[in-house]
Amino acid sequence: MTQYGTLGVAVIGTGRMGADHVRRIDQVISGARVSAVVDLDAERAKRLADGIEGCTAHTDAAAAMAADDVDALVIASPGPAHEEALLTAFAHDLPVLCEKPLTPDAASALRVLEAEQRLGRRRVQVGFMRRYDAEYMKLKALLDGGSLGRPLMLHNRHRNASSPPGFTSANLINDSVVHEMDVTRWLLDQEITAVTVLRPRPSSNAPEGLADPQFVVFETDGGALVDVEMSVNTGFGYQVKAEAVCERGTARIGEEQSLVTETAGRWGGTIVQDFTERFADAYDREVQAWVDATRRGEVTGPSVWDGYAAAAVCEAGVRSLTEGVRVEVELIERPALYR
Amino acid sequence: MTQYGTLGVAVIGTGRMGADHVRRIDQVISGARVSAVVDLDAERAKRLADGIEGCTAHTDAAAAMAADDVDALVIASPGPAHEEALLTAFAHDLPVLCEKPLTPDAASALRVLEAEQRLGRRRVQVGFMRRYDAEYMKLKALLDGGSLGRPLMLHNRHRNASSPPGFTSANLINDSVVHEMDVTRWLLDQEITAVTVLRPRPSSNAPEGLADPQFVVFETDGGALVDVEMSVNTGFGYQVKAEAVCERGTARIGEEQSLVTETAGRWGGTIVQDFTERFADAYDREVQAWVDATRRGEVTGPSVWDGYAAAAVCEAGVRSLTEGVRVEVELIERPALYR
Amino acid sequence: MTQYGTLGVAVIGTGRMGADHVRRIDQVISGARVSAVVDLDAERAKRLADGIEGCTAHTDAAAAMAADDVDALVIASPGPAHEEALLTAFAHDLPVLCEKPLTPDAASALRVLEAEQRLGRRRVQVGFMRRYDAEYMKLKALLDGGSLGRPLMLHNRHRNASSPPGFTSANLINDSVVHEMDVTRWLLDQEITAVTVLRPRPSSNAPEGLADPQFVVFETDGGALVDVEMSVNTGFGYQVKAEAVCERGTARIGEEQSLVTETAGRWGGTIVQDFTERFADAYDREVQAWVDATRRGEVTGPSVWDGYAAAAVCEAGVRSLTEGVRVEVELIERPALYR
Amino acid sequence: MTQYGTLGVAVIGTGRMGADHVRRIDQVISGARVSAVVDLDAERAKRLADGIEGCTAHTDAAAAMAADDVDALVIASPGPAHEEALLTAFAHDLPVLCEKPLTPDAASALRVLEAEQRLGRRRVQVGFMRRYDAEYMKLKALLDGGSLGRPLMLHNRHRNASSPPGFTSANLINDSVVHEMDVTRWLLDQEITAVTVLRPRPSSNAPEGLADPQFVVFETDGGALVDVEMSVNTGFGYQVKAEAVCERGTARIGEEQSLVTETAGRWGGTIVQDFTERFADAYDREVQAWVDATRRGEVTGPSVWDGYAAAAVCEAGVRSLTEGVRVEVELIERPALYR
Repeated sequence: MTQYGTLGVAVIGTGRMGADHVRRIDQVISGARVSAVVDLDAERAKRLADGIEGCTAHTDAAAAMAADDVDALVIASPGPAHEEALLTAFAHDLPVLCEKPLTPDAASALRVLEAEQRLGRRRVQVGFMRRYDAEYMKLKALLDGGSLGRPLMLHNRHRNASSPPGFTSANLINDSVVHEMDVTRWLLDQEITAVTVLRPRPSSNAPEGLADPQFVVFETDGGALVDVEMSVNTGFGYQVKAEAVCERGTARIGEEQSLVTETAGRWGGTIVQDFTERFADAYDREVQAWVDATRRGEVTGPSVWDGYAAAAVCEAGVRSLTEGVRVEVELIERPALYR
Repeated sequence: MTQYGTLGVAVIGTGRMGADHVRRIDQVISGARVSAVVDLDAERAKRLADGIEGCTAHTDAAAAMAADDVDALVIASPGPAHEEALLTAFAHDLPVLCEKPLTPDAASALRVLEAEQRLGRRRVQVGFMRRYDAEYMKLKALLDGGSLGRPLMLHNRHRNASSPPGFTSANLINDSVVHEMDVTRWLLDQEITAVTVLRPRPSSNAPEGLADPQFVVFETDGGALVDVEMSVNTGFGYQVKAEAVCERGTARIGEEQSLVTETAGRWGGTIVQDFTERFADAYDREVQAWVDATRRGEVTGPSVWDGYAAAAVCEAGVRSLTEGVRVEVELIERPALYR
Repeated sequence: MTQYGTLGVAVIGTGRMGADHVRRIDQVISGARVSAVVDLDAERAKRLADGIEGCTAHTDAAAAMAADDVDALVIASPGPAHEEALLTAFAHDLPVLCEKPLTPDAASALRVLEAEQRLGRRRVQVGFMRRYDAEYMKLKALLDGGSLGRPLMLHNRHRNASSPPGFTSANLINDSVVHEMDVTRWLLDQEITAVTVLRPRPSSNAPEGLADPQFVVFETDGGALVDVEMSVNTGFGYQVKAEAVCERGTARIGEEQSLVTETAGRWGGTIVQDFTERFADAYDREVQAWVDATRRGEVTGPSVWDGYAAAAVCEAGVRSLTEGVRVEVELIERPALYR
Repeated sequence: MTQYGTLGVAVIGTGRMGADHVRRIDQVISGARVSAVVDLDAERAKRLADGIEGCTAHTDAAAAMAADDVDALVIASPGPAHEEALLTAFAHDLPVLCEKPLTPDAASALRVLEAEQRLGRRRVQVGFMRRYDAEYMKLKALLDGGSLGRPLMLHNRHRNASSPPGFTSANLINDSVVHEMDVTRWLLDQEITAVTVLRPRPSSNAPEGLADPQFVVFETDGGALVDVEMSVNTGFGYQVKAEAVCERGTARIGEEQSLVTETAGRWGGTIVQDFTERFADAYDREVQAWVDATRRGEVTGPSVWDGYAAAAVCEAGVRSLTEGVRVEVELIERPALYR
């Protein structure tokens, strides 16, 4: 049944996410090994490769893809480089785990979508890792089970302790709210049809000129209403919460209660400080699931269609943010490959 | 310092709320007694009065107001009767606790506002009883204390098990969301400047034609953004929750955890079924506070201005609901008496 | 049906608890007024009486009991004075709310028990106010309802921020654990048959020589096992928690979650600092219930039997603490009056 | 630094735990492979081996240990078989992960302890997997950090939905409470010096004759008091909770809140039904940690000393259960190898 023994993986891009995926494949998950790392910075690639038995370093992604012991790719380079890497991977007929965003805009995502359709089979899983978070998985299973009835609304809180230097108002949509876009589409199994971005008076924690927080409202083709509180300079920590309000009840996730202390007149727990801590297990599970499916010759995770839809909703969101109006989302008809 | 001994109170209207206030003044709180009850239904008034020592029954509010042993009024008649009762009370110079709404629309509320200004001093407390709920009071104290910094957003959930017969889409605004309007104005100490009412696809629990749930967004003159999930046919119970998101932290109320059980594969607690259970203590505290202040010759609770502002925001809300657009709220300048 | 109009109450002892009951009857509850206050400190009594219309000050309890406008008593003097005050009250045939302890030891409690039996009807309610706490009442109702099956164990946590000066190891039993004794007997409707007091190494917060914390185990005649963590110098606040473990589930109370904040890397709430804050409503409800029952000519709360049983268990507890062994509790047979 | 590449592991015993470890090493964790499985049931061993590349089946543990591609052992056979397997493993100088119990009694555990000392270095990790549970790890880190001060008491709840056929009163101590014994020793870094087992009236869910629940009290050489509610027929699910009460605060774990629903008048979550669900990640983390340490040539987890101490405390516990008295625990002096 297995089509591959141990999967030889080339990791393209060795920044924060790429290096973390290298560590994960090398030390945490089962059934795969890092056979190549690729980075424009040759020194950096070599340093990483040296710590791993049988791993070679490259500065050229295409060369890595051509190597005999490379069975599959993880693309973790900057978004603008994804399209070329994906098309080359298609040429080598390699399965890919592509970090989000699939590509930086809807037009380029559409080109990838068309290229994959020409291949005639799915090769790409997009890195929307919340689908692999234990809490979101429970919520999804509950909604799919149907005991709560049809979802009417989905309330989301997405909070970061602080934004990185140079983070723009559009980044809140493209890099942060994009997760709730995917979560919405996946949890509800509905497409987003309109976006409205509302701007409360910015927090004084936010850098001058940054529209932070934002309050984003999605409408879906199933008639659900989805709101997202998006904050990137809370100061107090990183939080992701969701509540689905359905016809027969509600369900919510994101209340961390694993260790509760009582001390100095206070009871409670700590708030994690960033997404790597909150979603560590989700990344492990995502990559393990990709390796397992790939070894069986399957693609099971978020698809190129999901990457394209997210790009289209992001474009609408940024327009709503800029123009202060509700913006409708235009998607092409869903191709047969992704039904 | 006390201006009254035991306060003689006439209760006008003896429906659900009025009868409950009669019971409260008679059996629960201190410093007041029910000296008169008024209802168009003479039999009903008499039956209630007979159970209370020294209490007389009336069908005419003005007659009750003229009685020697009536020092103050509780108005619990239907909203359309409030204006006349209030103006008559002003003529008798009687302090009033007036159930919400102050009056059914902004124009009539404005007339009451002008009449009270002519008196030159405040006589009316409006029955926005959430201000007397222990949880809201803690939240208010925390926000006023300033440790969390400026409020940026306020998220509200307001859920009822089922709507009464004849409840209309506009009732969701005028009778239910009106509480969050007052809570918003009071907690933030800001006026509401615009309202947008969004309509997800209605719950199949809702009667045909009722826009339920609604998702309401307020903007305030302090730049805060407030959202309200308003559901009146959840089926599962009554819930009121609020979360204030501030510059240095968040605070939330409404998670009932007084009794937690573990049984049959589930842990958790019960959800109350209506507002009388959830807010029983708030009503007691409200009326006790009104009696105490009245005996000292003061008016301390929600004012006619608060009643007027709520009416104006409600009108805007109903227009937004009907027309599907964002509606700005027009208020007169705040008179000196209410600053 | 009412046997009294407004109940005239004499409050004997005007220390912390007595003064608080005076305030409560005067300003909070319905149906009673303070007609007399009694304290050996004449000045103190006079000062208190002066603030209340129609209230007289006494230094002699018997004189107050003889007054025409005294219908009932609250005894809040120190425990050693209770026996005499109770017997005098019996002579005047007055209903009494007696602060705990009923008397300081089992022998004197037994004398009061016998005296009340000679009267032939119950006149005394003992001040075990936890029975009037909303959370304990819910737990009691749940256990009585039977849905969880027979109680097997009861776990209790009773924590104080700091102990008052002069507080002894025996005070932890007699003044603090005594509440769990009553709670155990009331919740389970069973008598305590044996007590074992275990002593972990004392906290360094505790004054030299104080056995704090203590861990107390009760056995009951129904076969239930009850444990109490009793700490009086936690430093961090006041907490009372209970968990009933039954055949078909568990139920617990005491997790305060009315206001939850998220700030500075922490989520959670505050811990109250003393019992007056935690049990404020319970005291109000206790005294209101006593007034209401007294006006109807009834006694409904904790009885002299409950006070006697608590005294007997306390004696056994102190012996276990001192001698380091399990001690069996000896009770007389329950008289017919208290069945 | 790495002493092994991919670690070849022989799994001895392929019952529930053994088969699960085979799956874990084959499909979940990194750095190891199953090179041999051993079971007296040759068919069963063969069936398991056939599904794994390069895995051989054996009925004789010694033969598996002699194989070239076996670098390390997992012992998951029944407890009585452990001593012989461990001594044979010592003869082959193989690192071992030995499921608990180390051996069934203190005398045999002592023989293993002496044999390992003769080797002069630690080779065995005992399978006390709670040390690898994320919540217990947080609690341990908090206690070790010292911010809460010295632990005074540790309260534990250990509940199972139902006991397997043939489960005896002594099994509650030897198979269930044994986890709290290890948790106590590890969290507090103290030895247990005395055990008292108390028996409430058994639950009617329990089979006739089974002393269930039990309430167990440990005393430690650091003066801490530890209590364990041990229930094996709750009917409602599996729960493990712990609360450490320290001089400056408390900390607790075990409140599952990952998904909270509100429906049909109830809020809350589900209770898992068995330990494999609750501790799935702990098992994964335990085996990964053992593989990682073994590849580095180290032993880092619970030692043979821990296995011996647990056996000695269990013996004392069973005596206390049987004889109804407090029993002191006798341990040999801790050998240098385990300090």
